[in-house]
Amino acid sequence: MNASSPPAGGTPKTPSTTAVTLPFQARIRKSAYFHASLKHGCHSFGVYNRTYISMGFQDPVKEYWDLLNGVVLWPVAGERQLEIKGPDASQFVQLLTPRNLDKFAVGQCKYLLVTADDGGIVNDPVCLKLGPDHYWLSAADSDIWLYARGINAMARMDVELSDPNVSVMQVQGPRSVDLMEKMFGPQVRTLKYYWCMESTLDDAPVVVSRTGWSSEWGYEIYLRDAAAGDRVFEHILAEGAEFGVQLGVVSQIRRIEGGMLSYGADMDLTTNPFEIGLGRLVDLEQSNDFIGRDALRSIAKAGAKRKIMGVSVPPPALSGFIEPWALEVNGDPVSTVTSLAFSPRLERNIGLTIVPTSLAEPGRAVSLVTPDGPVAGELQDLPFVSGRTG
Amino acid sequence: MNASSPPAGGTPKTPSTTAVTLPFQARIRKSAYFHASLKHGCHSFGVYNRTYISMGFQDPVKEYWDLLNGVVLWPVAGERQLEIKGPDASQFVQLLTPRNLDKFAVGQCKYLLVTADDGGIVNDPVCLKLGPDHYWLSAADSDIWLYARGINAMARMDVELSDPNVSVMQVQGPRSVDLMEKMFGPQVRTLKYYWCMESTLDDAPVVVSRTGWSSEWGYEIYLRDAAAGDRVFEHILAEGAEFGVQLGVVSQIRRIEGGMLSYGADMDLTTNPFEIGLGRLVDLEQSNDFIGRDALRSIAKAGAKRKIMGVSVPPPALSGFIEPWALEVNGDPVSTVTSLAFSPRLERNIGLTIVPTSLAEPGRAVSLVTPDGPVAGELQDLPFVSGRTG
Repeated sequence: MNASSPPAGGTPKTPSTTAVTLPFQARIRKSAYFHASLKHGCHSFGVYNRTYISMGFQDPVKEYWDLLNGVVLWPVAGERQLEIKGPDASQFVQLLTPRNLDKFAVGQCKYLLVTADDGGIVNDPVCLKLGPDHYWLSAADSDIWLYARGINAMARMDVELSDPNVSVMQVQGPRSVDLMEKMFGPQVRTLKYYWCMESTLDDAPVVVSRTGWSSEWGYEIYLRDAAAGDRVFEHILAEGAEFGVQLGVVSQIRRIEGGMLSYGADMDLTTNPFEIGLGRLVDLEQSNDFIGRDALRSIAKAGAKRKIMGVSVPPPALSGFIEPWALEVNGDPVSTVTSLAFSPRLERNIGLTIVPTSLAEPGRAVSLVTPDGPVAGELQDLPFVSGRTG
Repeated sequence: MNASSPPAGGTPKTPSTTAVTLPFQARIRKSAYFHASLKHGCHSFGVYNRTYISMGFQDPVKEYWDLLNGVVLWPVAGERQLEIKGPDASQFVQLLTPRNLDKFAVGQCKYLLVTADDGGIVNDPVCLKLGPDHYWLSAADSDIWLYARGINAMARMDVELSDPNVSVMQVQGPRSVDLMEKMFGPQVRTLKYYWCMESTLDDAPVVVSRTGWSSEWGYEIYLRDAAAGDRVFEHILAEGAEFGVQLGVVSQIRRIEGGMLSYGADMDLTTNPFEIGLGRLVDLEQSNDFIGRDALRSIAKAGAKRKIMGVSVPPPALSGFIEPWALEVNGDPVSTVTSLAFSPRLERNIGLTIVPTSLAEPGRAVSLVTPDGPVAGELQDLPFVSGRTG
């Protein structure tokens, strides 16, 4: 199937989820884009890093095709920054992660795993190096701020740790580069993958990075002046009109196709980097100290006992995925399915699961225990779709 | 007005909040009581400690009167436990809090503030001492687990830190003691305030404490076997029928009346214990070490610059409180209102705010900046209602 057009027979049924109302509470943060998101039709929200995050503007299948074919804006409000500044900032960031940061240039970004002392995963941020002693860790949904505060209550390093009120807008999809060039000039077109730059947008200070959570070409805009949220939101929409820009939210379909993992779903404190296919982010030979080194050495030596795999189930689209489903092999529960979506272009259900290494064979027959009974599927290697579309 | 009956003219209008849908996500935890809560009519949820928490079964004003006059069940699923076990457990818990724990007996509970190195508040758990080397910190909505893990990544004390899958049911209201006695026998009637005991309920292991978040007489039941959730939920409901037990959620009205603070709303990392009237939980003279001691000594010496106060506004009930509202004195914004509800028996809007100490005078005229414009009110001392009803 051509990625550039929906299937002729119409879009398959989107997996539905039971929904209830969400009464807004004063104690949950509203990002700079909260009011504009409501005004522009955001019909559902979740909570991410104790902040309301948009969960839907349009039909998720439409949002998926918009991402593959054009350019979409995702106000990912829950993506907050742990800011680390000060003379010991580089040493402190290195302490948090097994990735070797010796060759980390100012203006560069790196995807990191933050590990606990037992090798479990605390968070998987993108780290932006904004200055020699100045970093942002753009955090997934776990309170890395308190982890860092706990560490430094003991380590007493010369760093300032904070949660600046930065609001992130992801600009994703093949036409994102055209919109970004219009807004930030030609230098954005030459911005390398996983690099960032400081700029302004409609006079508001922003950081722009060539990163994103879509498996497609894309950028993130980090708005530093929360008071400018409404204005900047409208500005980006207006600038994008000529490119057919659409509002949307993180496409679970596309990110699962691309084998991108979601913290809290596919990894957490009980998973280690080797199990989830991210051993490349662990450097056990470096001379730098980091939390979890001894544990990760032991795990590496013993070999990972589990491996992340894709799971594929033929149509029809499965619904009711609101809890991890048990995954069975020959009738025995061996793991759970932690993410699931129906891919319109692959025309099948695709999911993620971490299975015992001995069972991690592509083609192995498995059973998913859905609320409506078991369904048959098979394991396969990740990603489901390699490379960008468009 | 008599607390035992709704006002003759009917219940005043409840402050409404804008609500949108909340699509359930697999990555957010469901407690042992999630399915039973849905089955029994829970119509809205929030997210608390990355877990779905019930936000409404019936009308909040009906739930308020049920609490004052009878017995209500609150499945407070987001109230998770940080478990601390091991030879250094007592020393570790003391490190977390400025409260002096020298005289902490097994079977006792203590309300604590967990402080950061700058004296800011990380969490305000109730701590249960289940054994000489065994504690639970029953946590408000901030990731105290990661704070503890960060501390111990450096301190390397001999403790085991975990988040056991415990589900809390609060049994609150003047008739709670009758229901609890029926379920747990006569010893529960003599359980002292802020003490706990181990027991079973319908064969499932539980801890029972005489604590709660209602300002009324009440208990908490900590279910240790998540698989028994549905059964235990139905069991408590059935046992409570003869006492007219009702399902409900934390009554914001009653807890504000009682001056009980909500972490994330009325206190957070930017507030210190002295500002929020909880200086009694700080012992600066003790010989025990704890995080934040130097900072809290400095703050105590200089004197608190801010003070928590009540704010009172005449009818009609205010609506649209989904974000902290600015509070003005003589037209100048001096703080925000962090919690707000309409009290049916006081027949006025009541809220909480932290104002500069120089302005903290009962009777001082203030203005609340609501989405519909400013309204006039006045400051008053806390609590709005002292002592239990019923």
